[in-house]
Amino acid sequence: MEFKVTHRCSTSGARRGQFTTPHGRFETPVFMPVGTQGTVKALSPNDLEQALVSVLLANTYHLYLRPGHGLIERLGGLHHFMSWNGSILTDSGGYQVYSLSKLRKISEQGVTFQSHLDGSTHFIGPREAMEIQRALGADLIMAFDECAPYPANYDYVRNSVRLTSQWARICLECHHSDSQTLFGIVQGGMFSELREKSAREIVSMGFEGYALGGLSVGEDRATRQQIVHETVPFLPAAKPRYLMGVGKPEDILDGVTAGIDMFDCVLPTRNARNGALFTTHGPLAIKNACYAEDDRPVDEHCSCYTCTHFSRAYLRHLFMAKELLAYRLNTIHNLHYYIGFMTDIRQSIREDRFVEFRQAFLEQSGS
Amino acid sequence: MEFKVTHRCSTSGARRGQFTTPHGRFETPVFMPVGTQGTVKALSPNDLEQALVSVLLANTYHLYLRPGHGLIERLGGLHHFMSWNGSILTDSGGYQVYSLSKLRKISEQGVTFQSHLDGSTHFIGPREAMEIQRALGADLIMAFDECAPYPANYDYVRNSVRLTSQWARICLECHHSDSQTLFGIVQGGMFSELREKSAREIVSMGFEGYALGGLSVGEDRATRQQIVHETVPFLPAAKPRYLMGVGKPEDILDGVTAGIDMFDCVLPTRNARNGALFTTHGPLAIKNACYAEDDRPVDEHCSCYTCTHFSRAYLRHLFMAKELLAYRLNTIHNLHYYIGFMTDIRQSIREDRFVEFRQAFLEQSGS
Repeated sequence: MEFKVTHRCSTSGARRGQFTTPHGRFETPVFMPVGTQGTVKALSPNDLEQALVSVLLANTYHLYLRPGHGLIERLGGLHHFMSWNGSILTDSGGYQVYSLSKLRKISEQGVTFQSHLDGSTHFIGPREAMEIQRALGADLIMAFDECAPYPANYDYVRNSVRLTSQWARICLECHHSDSQTLFGIVQGGMFSELREKSAREIVSMGFEGYALGGLSVGEDRATRQQIVHETVPFLPAAKPRYLMGVGKPEDILDGVTAGIDMFDCVLPTRNARNGALFTTHGPLAIKNACYAEDDRPVDEHCSCYTCTHFSRAYLRHLFMAKELLAYRLNTIHNLHYYIGFMTDIRQSIREDRFVEFRQAFLEQSGS
Repeated sequence: MEFKVTHRCSTSGARRGQFTTPHGRFETPVFMPVGTQGTVKALSPNDLEQALVSVLLANTYHLYLRPGHGLIERLGGLHHFMSWNGSILTDSGGYQVYSLSKLRKISEQGVTFQSHLDGSTHFIGPREAMEIQRALGADLIMAFDECAPYPANYDYVRNSVRLTSQWARICLECHHSDSQTLFGIVQGGMFSELREKSAREIVSMGFEGYALGGLSVGEDRATRQQIVHETVPFLPAAKPRYLMGVGKPEDILDGVTAGIDMFDCVLPTRNARNGALFTTHGPLAIKNACYAEDDRPVDEHCSCYTCTHFSRAYLRHLFMAKELLAYRLNTIHNLHYYIGFMTDIRQSIREDRFVEFRQAFLEQSGS
């Protein structure tokens, strides 16, 4: 793995970088679409390539439960299993254990929980998370953390920071692969003091990359922005920074402003399946009656397969008729929008006009 | 439109032909996948091109109800609406009116029925069916017929044959387009005498192509085979012959043997969505546990995108997890299978070994 910062914005924390993994090179800031169950919903690897996706995220929790990390390892690892030759990042499972599973019980060793699929009981701690991620074989892997709910009180979050550091140490001890890059995760909820404490502890352990976890869990944009801006200065400038689960285009601009390099979010893909499309002029709800006879593409400035072949009228028809093609065409468009948005951000950083780009974007989209 | 028979089998009724429409040329015998609502379920036009599909079927009944033929005409016709540059055949709506709608009432003028979507009342007769199909703008269109249920008694079917002939005359009178080829439909249920009567009447009117309707409605394979074999001799040898709604590979072989040129069926696409895959060694139910760790493609002899990129294990995982990609990958495979099957049939006819091909196919697949 190699990460290097190639440009820095002169008037904000924004930076441009280059990340090299065993499965290729990609430029940062980067957006990683979410392929929860080993597939970015509604898309094939070929669709992802055509959307110029270079790295995607898969969920350890889901793949552990079904089809199982052992099965995926025996079949040659996640890249081979899903026929994806680009880079993959797996999360640690920590967030899903808290948000999806039932009856979770946290101990010093890890978390016992019931599967959301069949109610069966499972245990994942830092050792298990590392073993599952080793078997899956992603290029970028995450330390197992304790993601505090929102809102959470100071004492809860202080303990969550303590556990996260304790588990991070174990993850580092278990990590022996040169082909997988391990990120540490900073927790600390909405408490600046605990964020600083967590960042200092995690950074002191010497990870190859750093993530901010426990955000985009219900807090408002200003709070999130403040926490990110306060925390990033504690992270080493030479290492990649990943803001987990974020987010809307305006949230990504906030993150880039603070010096974040990597983002992931279900928003473009989930919204697509709900008929909510991103355009350069703001959101478009394809089911609206006003599009019934609209022969224009979703976005006249867009060069995706959907916009170059189909009208809003046809996409509305597919969506109203619940045709499977609707979900794919909408997802192709939204992902193309996000990937293009990141390309524009990177270009604006290289040309040292990121702050102007951000301003113009927020005005045009009404964010 | 131009249709010519290019080869005839020396030991069966099988024949090879070439059909030219305003949207290209295709070889017969041909299989037309079903794109009920203006989309072959789960596939994009690009997927269809890659599967070498040259002509597809769309349903007049469905498109009339939603989004409406007027809307599609205003948006440039069905080809433009769905972004499909190949040929299209629309059925007359007759079959769906009987099989899907509620409270249908047949008169001498046509059928009054309630929409399966919202219960609203509609009327379609021969004039309406022709007007809807004119607006949709398919290359091949069908006369409006009365499709008898199965089983139906002699008197019911005799009246159905009478109405079908009466309506066929009106369809011919209403048909003024050079860019659309109108097929007449032969009815007559499972009564040889009524099939002959219907065929004589319809053929005497001088259509550009002839279809056998009212089959694949529940009768057994031997009955269907007999009816087709008895009826085809009454159809002119120089015109294309279309066996509507058929069928399984063995049914297609039966039809080709009798001299049928065109087929359509939901089987490959519907089965795909249910996880039932066609292979050269017979059907494969992808959900079966024996495929959980099976790294082989669905069919080792298949060159489709699915078989060249994904294992049975991955396809099973997608299917069990109800991932949208499952339906598309399965459909790509099944359609590739059907299109390849038709290519093999045509080649065997050209090389005058169709009967041997049929025999070998039925033995290998266990039909």
